[in-house]
Amino acid sequence: MSIELTILGCHSATPRENAHPTSQIVTIKNHTFLVDCGEGTQVQLRKYSIKFNKIKHIFISHLHGDHYFGLIGLISTFRLLNRETELHIYAPKGLKEIITLQLKLSKSWTQYPLYFHELNSTKSEIIFEDDKVTVQTIPLSHRIYTNGFLFKEKLGERKLNIKAISNYPDIKICDYQNLKIGRDFTLENGTNIKNQELTFDPNHPLSYAFCSDTEYLPEITKIINKVDTLYHEATFLNDKEALAKTTKHSTAQQAAEIAKMAEVKNLIIGHFSSRYKNKKTFLTEAKKVFKNTVLAEEGKMFKIGN
Amino acid sequence: MSIELTILGCHSATPRENAHPTSQIVTIKNHTFLVDCGEGTQVQLRKYSIKFNKIKHIFISHLHGDHYFGLIGLISTFRLLNRETELHIYAPKGLKEIITLQLKLSKSWTQYPLYFHELNSTKSEIIFEDDKVTVQTIPLSHRIYTNGFLFKEKLGERKLNIKAISNYPDIKICDYQNLKIGRDFTLENGTNIKNQELTFDPNHPLSYAFCSDTEYLPEITKIINKVDTLYHEATFLNDKEALAKTTKHSTAQQAAEIAKMAEVKNLIIGHFSSRYKNKKTFLTEAKKVFKNTVLAEEGKMFKIGN
Repeated sequence: MSIELTILGCHSATPRENAHPTSQIVTIKNHTFLVDCGEGTQVQLRKYSIKFNKIKHIFISHLHGDHYFGLIGLISTFRLLNRETELHIYAPKGLKEIITLQLKLSKSWTQYPLYFHELNSTKSEIIFEDDKVTVQTIPLSHRIYTNGFLFKEKLGERKLNIKAISNYPDIKICDYQNLKIGRDFTLENGTNIKNQELTFDPNHPLSYAFCSDTEYLPEITKIINKVDTLYHEATFLNDKEALAKTTKHSTAQQAAEIAKMAEVKNLIIGHFSSRYKNKKTFLTEAKKVFKNTVLAEEGKMFKIGN
Repeated sequence: MSIELTILGCHSATPRENAHPTSQIVTIKNHTFLVDCGEGTQVQLRKYSIKFNKIKHIFISHLHGDHYFGLIGLISTFRLLNRETELHIYAPKGLKEIITLQLKLSKSWTQYPLYFHELNSTKSEIIFEDDKVTVQTIPLSHRIYTNGFLFKEKLGERKLNIKAISNYPDIKICDYQNLKIGRDFTLENGTNIKNQELTFDPNHPLSYAFCSDTEYLPEITKIINKVDTLYHEATFLNDKEALAKTTKHSTAQQAAEIAKMAEVKNLIIGHFSSRYKNKKTFLTEAKKVFKNTVLAEEGKMFKIGN
């Protein structure tokens, strides 16, 4: 299994025909999470054949338009498609008021259950959890209240070493579950067989961190330490470091420094300002600090793990 | 001079890659009016090279998403482009609350003057007027409060008949303005020359009526009587007349009947439901009732007048 990340949009500010604002799909353990939802996201979802009905959880980082103006349209389209599945939205406080006001004025309440989970904590917290996955906020520092999100698989069960097990006819299929959860096995003659002899370690639990928008913020490296893949905003290049500071954004170099400090495996940079025509310059700048960097690209799917 | 109409989007409900929701540009007497603003309108404006700064007046028919979800994005983009020109928005009551709430939560007030002219009258009223143009509401009947808009040139000045004038050396250039506003001329010998001898009638004042969304509503024919061009919604074909009635939309045939009754010169139909793959069927149905019908098409520019 792997985490799959599909970039629907990775540009900052104003949408253009081939430069959509932030939105991405994270598929992890049978969940299809939508992260941010700039204007035009629903069109991008269709373009990249994401099934609308699979989206049950939407995470919004902050209330700047390029991260959420497409949400009301998506909610409305779900209604027009006669959706019945519930929809959960995790977003800064205030979004519920915006959406409900628009639904009220259009006299178009959703016929499907719509739940808002409004965020206002400045500390990292788990906002979604089931038996296989957690989603945790990464408090960021931007001009308004903003969170990144850390998507993590839980440590799975141990894997059966069928070859080793076959040496012990006493072990039946009905014993397998106990082995998977780490128990030793006692043979009929009383001999104890260590679990480690009968099983392999579980798969490495994968993790993906989304950090946009934020100024250079070394504090987050504690939360995102050693994640498999980090998406970090890189709105500017180093030539605009002062502007990055004023607008509370990051440069490509700063994104790479965060990746290095956090010892992540891979870095994806995005949220490019449209002032830069050649995106490769972002890559060149970041790679000087952190080699395993790639550029976000619209429509591109990244596999995290095997 | 002519009125120019550019269709940015002419489909109903959900935006798709090549089926944008309602939005159009009406250029009349040096004004560039934006009418409705579905999601993605700002991208369409760029695509069809409409200069953002020329748009000073935006008219919103009603608060269903496919007619206004693109507005907050456009307002924000104007801000990012450092607009200074004032912007006037004519829209049903409620829109101001939606927009100001979003600007407040993003801490992104516009640095340019933004004026809302909220509409709630159910009678036709003039909502914009200068020395050359009026814009008047056309109260429509839809599921929520909705207006169409009638754009009308004012009757211009009379045109000088230079050949006739040259017969009278008494008439100097400084007298021309009096002739243009219809005055007779008295020669030095006391002879009165009728204005009609010295001037031609002014150009026919052009008019364009936008009617979307609405159920079949013969009452509007009084307001739109003899307009040069009528844009009327035709969400459905006749096979779905019952559905048109329930959802308070019109069929292509009904749009044509309105055009015929109102004795307009030309009819453009749009706001097509995505259930119909072949748009020509709309044209066939409407033309049976009103010959001078054409289909709205994204990116198409219609000239009204010479």
